[in-house]
Amino acid sequence: MQIENYQIEEHNSQLQADHRRRFDFAASEVPGAEQIIEKLVKFQVAIPSWALGTGGTRFGRFSGGGEPRNLEEKMEDIGLLHKLNRSSGAISLHIPWDIPGNIASIKALAAQYELKFDAVNSNTFQDQPNQAHSYKFGSLQNVDKAIRKQAIEHNIEVIKHGIDLGSDALTVWLADGSTFPGQLNMRKAFQNTLESLQEIYEALPDHWKVFVEYKAYEPNFYSTTVGDWGQSLLFANKLGPKAYTLVDLGHHLPNANIEQIVALLLMEGKLGGFHFNDSKYGDDDLTTGSIKPYQLFLIFNELVEGMDARGMDHATGLGWMIDASHNVKDPLEDLLQSVEAIMLAYAQALLVDRKALAEAQAESDVVRCQEILQGTFRTDLRAIVAEARLRAGGAANPIKLYRDLKVREKLISGRGLKTVATGL
Amino acid sequence: MQIENYQIEEHNSQLQADHRRRFDFAASEVPGAEQIIEKLVKFQVAIPSWALGTGGTRFGRFSGGGEPRNLEEKMEDIGLLHKLNRSSGAISLHIPWDIPGNIASIKALAAQYELKFDAVNSNTFQDQPNQAHSYKFGSLQNVDKAIRKQAIEHNIEVIKHGIDLGSDALTVWLADGSTFPGQLNMRKAFQNTLESLQEIYEALPDHWKVFVEYKAYEPNFYSTTVGDWGQSLLFANKLGPKAYTLVDLGHHLPNANIEQIVALLLMEGKLGGFHFNDSKYGDDDLTTGSIKPYQLFLIFNELVEGMDARGMDHATGLGWMIDASHNVKDPLEDLLQSVEAIMLAYAQALLVDRKALAEAQAESDVVRCQEILQGTFRTDLRAIVAEARLRAGGAANPIKLYRDLKVREKLISGRGLKTVATGL
Amino acid sequence: MQIENYQIEEHNSQLQADHRRRFDFAASEVPGAEQIIEKLVKFQVAIPSWALGTGGTRFGRFSGGGEPRNLEEKMEDIGLLHKLNRSSGAISLHIPWDIPGNIASIKALAAQYELKFDAVNSNTFQDQPNQAHSYKFGSLQNVDKAIRKQAIEHNIEVIKHGIDLGSDALTVWLADGSTFPGQLNMRKAFQNTLESLQEIYEALPDHWKVFVEYKAYEPNFYSTTVGDWGQSLLFANKLGPKAYTLVDLGHHLPNANIEQIVALLLMEGKLGGFHFNDSKYGDDDLTTGSIKPYQLFLIFNELVEGMDARGMDHATGLGWMIDASHNVKDPLEDLLQSVEAIMLAYAQALLVDRKALAEAQAESDVVRCQEILQGTFRTDLRAIVAEARLRAGGAANPIKLYRDLKVREKLISGRGLKTVATGL
Amino acid sequence: MQIENYQIEEHNSQLQADHRRRFDFAASEVPGAEQIIEKLVKFQVAIPSWALGTGGTRFGRFSGGGEPRNLEEKMEDIGLLHKLNRSSGAISLHIPWDIPGNIASIKALAAQYELKFDAVNSNTFQDQPNQAHSYKFGSLQNVDKAIRKQAIEHNIEVIKHGIDLGSDALTVWLADGSTFPGQLNMRKAFQNTLESLQEIYEALPDHWKVFVEYKAYEPNFYSTTVGDWGQSLLFANKLGPKAYTLVDLGHHLPNANIEQIVALLLMEGKLGGFHFNDSKYGDDDLTTGSIKPYQLFLIFNELVEGMDARGMDHATGLGWMIDASHNVKDPLEDLLQSVEAIMLAYAQALLVDRKALAEAQAESDVVRCQEILQGTFRTDLRAIVAEARLRAGGAANPIKLYRDLKVREKLISGRGLKTVATGL
Repeated sequence: MQIENYQIEEHNSQLQADHRRRFDFAASEVPGAEQIIEKLVKFQVAIPSWALGTGGTRFGRFSGGGEPRNLEEKMEDIGLLHKLNRSSGAISLHIPWDIPGNIASIKALAAQYELKFDAVNSNTFQDQPNQAHSYKFGSLQNVDKAIRKQAIEHNIEVIKHGIDLGSDALTVWLADGSTFPGQLNMRKAFQNTLESLQEIYEALPDHWKVFVEYKAYEPNFYSTTVGDWGQSLLFANKLGPKAYTLVDLGHHLPNANIEQIVALLLMEGKLGGFHFNDSKYGDDDLTTGSIKPYQLFLIFNELVEGMDARGMDHATGLGWMIDASHNVKDPLEDLLQSVEAIMLAYAQALLVDRKALAEAQAESDVVRCQEILQGTFRTDLRAIVAEARLRAGGAANPIKLYRDLKVREKLISGRGLKTVATGL
Repeated sequence: MQIENYQIEEHNSQLQADHRRRFDFAASEVPGAEQIIEKLVKFQVAIPSWALGTGGTRFGRFSGGGEPRNLEEKMEDIGLLHKLNRSSGAISLHIPWDIPGNIASIKALAAQYELKFDAVNSNTFQDQPNQAHSYKFGSLQNVDKAIRKQAIEHNIEVIKHGIDLGSDALTVWLADGSTFPGQLNMRKAFQNTLESLQEIYEALPDHWKVFVEYKAYEPNFYSTTVGDWGQSLLFANKLGPKAYTLVDLGHHLPNANIEQIVALLLMEGKLGGFHFNDSKYGDDDLTTGSIKPYQLFLIFNELVEGMDARGMDHATGLGWMIDASHNVKDPLEDLLQSVEAIMLAYAQALLVDRKALAEAQAESDVVRCQEILQGTFRTDLRAIVAEARLRAGGAANPIKLYRDLKVREKLISGRGLKTVATGL
Repeated sequence: MQIENYQIEEHNSQLQADHRRRFDFAASEVPGAEQIIEKLVKFQVAIPSWALGTGGTRFGRFSGGGEPRNLEEKMEDIGLLHKLNRSSGAISLHIPWDIPGNIASIKALAAQYELKFDAVNSNTFQDQPNQAHSYKFGSLQNVDKAIRKQAIEHNIEVIKHGIDLGSDALTVWLADGSTFPGQLNMRKAFQNTLESLQEIYEALPDHWKVFVEYKAYEPNFYSTTVGDWGQSLLFANKLGPKAYTLVDLGHHLPNANIEQIVALLLMEGKLGGFHFNDSKYGDDDLTTGSIKPYQLFLIFNELVEGMDARGMDHATGLGWMIDASHNVKDPLEDLLQSVEAIMLAYAQALLVDRKALAEAQAESDVVRCQEILQGTFRTDLRAIVAEARLRAGGAANPIKLYRDLKVREKLISGRGLKTVATGL
Repeated sequence: MQIENYQIEEHNSQLQADHRRRFDFAASEVPGAEQIIEKLVKFQVAIPSWALGTGGTRFGRFSGGGEPRNLEEKMEDIGLLHKLNRSSGAISLHIPWDIPGNIASIKALAAQYELKFDAVNSNTFQDQPNQAHSYKFGSLQNVDKAIRKQAIEHNIEVIKHGIDLGSDALTVWLADGSTFPGQLNMRKAFQNTLESLQEIYEALPDHWKVFVEYKAYEPNFYSTTVGDWGQSLLFANKLGPKAYTLVDLGHHLPNANIEQIVALLLMEGKLGGFHFNDSKYGDDDLTTGSIKPYQLFLIFNELVEGMDARGMDHATGLGWMIDASHNVKDPLEDLLQSVEAIMLAYAQALLVDRKALAEAQAESDVVRCQEILQGTFRTDLRAIVAEARLRAGGAANPIKLYRDLKVREKLISGRGLKTVATGL
């Protein structure tokens, strides 16, 4: 299904008076509102192709209805999101779940929905039917050279799909590690992984990047071979200038200071990509901003400060992507909430008075530092974000319009109640 | 020193135009602003007598200047806070750090500063000079009956001081526990503690409460004898109707859902008191709201919902107190920030549309539940809180006025640079 | 397949000399070796019917071969384990994964393998095909009465199956909870759950117990309605004398002192059952004893001390069960390792010099307390455990014999390489 | 006081028969017992000068009696330990707590007690009386250049003391960091710290090392500027070949896999030193091996494997030191327990059948890998460790002899009951 421009316009005109009042107040309170809006308009968050269906846990999955049955329908879903919020103009493909069949028609569809192809993702954490070797004991780290080779070739295959589509980055998330003490020689696992990544690195086109994602634990429950930012940075440095670290918010030990990790990776010129989600316990993959919105702001505060210090373009300097699992919400509504939370945190970070903060820091005036950051965070920027969305052609209230238009009901009637999207 | 009314008035009139504009907007956005303001005016947070000096860690303490040297100066400090924010009208005494000398003059001083005496706190986690027995291996739990007796008598002594001052609650925080496996028979430790508490309970006046505080760990690093809400509730139930649990935000294992604990304790009619602070790692005792402001709101959301369900008065139904340590901030500024964060979270909780939330819950509409709570949290209520403070006679911006009036400088000139307040 | 007595005898006679030398030394070092052996022989650990296949995570499952395809084959597997170690003489059934068809033949099979039917387990954390209502938003807690009713009836059905088989306990593990703040009224969720449990409780035969299992998080990632031992105890106390708490080692927040929980629940007379596994991060469901063997010993130390204080029979006083997931090991080998670790920890706990420990505790001689516990733990009791196993007719080295007899290969040849057992 | 050789001999002869029986059995069970003993004899663990008094927490300190009042008495205490266990033949000095007065006499004393001077430790986490600038807001990271300079000069001063004594390493533990979000520009804090360390590095003699210790949190509760191994490694790499990382077991986030960190740092040639202790919650600084003895073994397993792979000498390749706090035990007994636990873990690691493990790893035979490691850990090597101690001239049971000789009582009678050693 498709949302028509007139539907958005009708919706917006109904909400216009309220929005105008709030926006006028916010704009009068906030210095530089126009520049903030300009940056918000440019900022796009990629949607992963596997996040359009209902997620699950090892205990079960409770499917919703109308889930996309193929890549084309996934793109249709992202097209709906982007139509509503104008900030979801990119898709991140997962191979082999979403191998594009007819490249030309997929690219035409992307153009129709105004979507770019973000980083492509390989999968060596599951076995596919008819796969020669199993990844039960790891892929790029495996003690068996033939298995490493199979995994390397899969990654090279993924790069090729990405080239066809116009993507320019590969994300490698490895489940590799061990579940019990003694299972691995951890040094050899590192070295095998490095050699494997080097072969993949060789296959990257010149302008491509490779993102080496890290994760503290799960699905392996003793060690993970790319387990933290320090290990990822070691790999990225040994690989070369096209290799970067990717930070996923849920991939840390309890209480980790992710803001600091972000700041240091930017300092080292090695932050490449970012996966948004939220969590209370582990890699819970919840809606971004749903549990710790202040932490999200603090992270964006470091991102903005650190990118500005290097002269990086906010919109294109890093790969921005959501990586969440929608277990109890409609996936599209969930994604709308996540993108909204990201835009708000980004807007807040843009609003921080950097000069005042730097002065307070220079005086170790901790009270004032807190006043500045919390004062910014407490400022209600929802109308600023909405204005950016409106100017870009989106809906004043995406979730409300999504519900008013009965999008999910229409997807169900078109696709069926019992579809299950590929993914986790 | 004292802040004069005219100083507050001058300050307020300077900030009036800005405040008025923001308040008018907020009031127009927020249903029931007047009722919220009314409740905010009544809400008072007790300041502990030990939190007026610079705190420290086991690695050191970096004292500030002008710290209060005795109980009278501590009351003076709280008087200053209360003059500024009109929400700090209570003091929580710690015995033996603050044994009142002349009761009549202390009460007169309290009346002058408009302060009530909140719960009194005993201390059996340190040895005092000339104490007969050591609490090295616990107090109310101790294997040695003479030591238990000494600790019981101390608590009864504390109650007497409280009676003298017009307090009506005793807070018992026990460091009792063990540092190594095997050190304690944990069942006997529980039973000794119970018997000791029963003797203290017997000494409580009829209208008094005793709050049994729990803490997961520290200063004992293997087990704590009142270690979690379940244990505290066991004690409170075995003791009787005057015994309650006290929740300190920093006293939990990582990732604990404190909101749920609060909801269940209210359900059981056994939540008695609350200690505010914030933390990232353990019992960090940071400024309330400085790390997880959304969690603070969620906790207040449960407090308001749960107290309303029992028909409890928000202001008097529970003992509200800050319990923080000010290691790198001026303690008075830190307390002003904490109280402000508490008032904001309380205001937000009052604003939650409970009917809409109940409906969304009844439909398991998780997206809508989140929209309601986050929409409330995102609403900027700072002007509402400021209005409540103004109506009660306080300052529009307490920290600004505190700095403009050079309060700390004056305290230093009056008390000296190298004073050290009793406390942690 | 079946392991024949002569095969065990041959194996044992090969290992006899070595065993004898080690056992003689151990017996000479250890006071009361005979009594310990006697208790070890009686101690049986139930095997859950769902743990005989390869486990998985939400990211994937890497099946082994020869997994049991039905209840009969699961019993065959447990029969093999019990034949080897003589300590796995019970099965814990999961409904609906293992609904017994012909009761008489199932009971005959159990008798043949010398297996008892331990607690039966209900499942309301997944939807079954053709189920009227979904448990997506909870079962016994659900806001919808019809869904609660369905879940209640399922539990009553499970009790009936248990009665048929001669079981005498029901384990209720609820995934019920919420994934996002605001999703639930946590008090109402508690009360709905309590009412539902009361109906189930009514259906229990007089001599039955119901175990209310708790879990901190997962699959819900914000709150769990029976989230910790305190909540479970509240339910058990409100339900009545047949209701107990069940402790699963992996169901706690980080760093929880499980030993203390066990001690207190025994003190309250409300510990009912125990699920063994191990973990480093969360509910990792690893082989018992593989990560924290000293903690396992400390827990057994409390179990033995606490049960003895109440005069409880070690073998029958609590329901003992393994609850693990075998992601990278042969499930049967994994279970043999788990049972061995349990027997060792139990043997060590039996060996603790309780009189000496009580004396050291009475003197707060912490160094000596540690010497006693660690001295016991460091003592190599493997030969004592092996002797108990030999006297009961088992194998000197179960894993070695399992491999020598090529049990897995034979199961694969009998059942096929690509079977997948029901379960997680 | 001093322990005489004849006292050790008497003690040993009393215990000889028992020891001999156990040792003979252990030696017959364990391949290569002689080589293990040889390595154990050479292995020495340094004792920090600040760990000889009773430790404390921010809540209090419960002093024991007879604590050393100066450096000479601290050396006397370590001399006693070394006399008893022959494995504590080194002292690690902390400046300014233990500035050596007369170098020649201190060196003579060391020679008399057979002690070497291990790494010297600087202290910029506390203010000393009459210090020009405060470290309240950090030292090497400070925004104020004058403060950084003071801290740099202090470190250079510490190096000079070390040179005088014959030490060859400097350990830099920084408390630097921030307690609240926004307090620091984390990138600038890193860079200031790096520049400061570079100046210190320049002052190192050619054959010296500098150990850059990391810690996740405390005493700062938001960020730490050298917060994890990744940050420490960044510093060490930027500094040069004399800079190394130092791992303290208690300085990690919950659930960190320290074994893996050790393996990777050895792989990178950047592991320099090691601080032993144990913990359940945070940096609890408990007796080594008292909480997680299996983890200690796993760490030693990686140490031995990784050092052997680089051809490093076990005894001298890394700086081995205890860093614990003795809150409820006699510090000397506590240290005896820690050293014993370290020697046992080292002995176990030496016993691991590396060839069999490598084979099992090469086959991804996870069950066998676990059997090998756990089989080694379960083997009782206490008699092997005791034999090594005896051959080196130590006591069969150091704690027993310490108590039999009433060492503490004599120290109290010599030094007084109310002495307090400098330190934490």
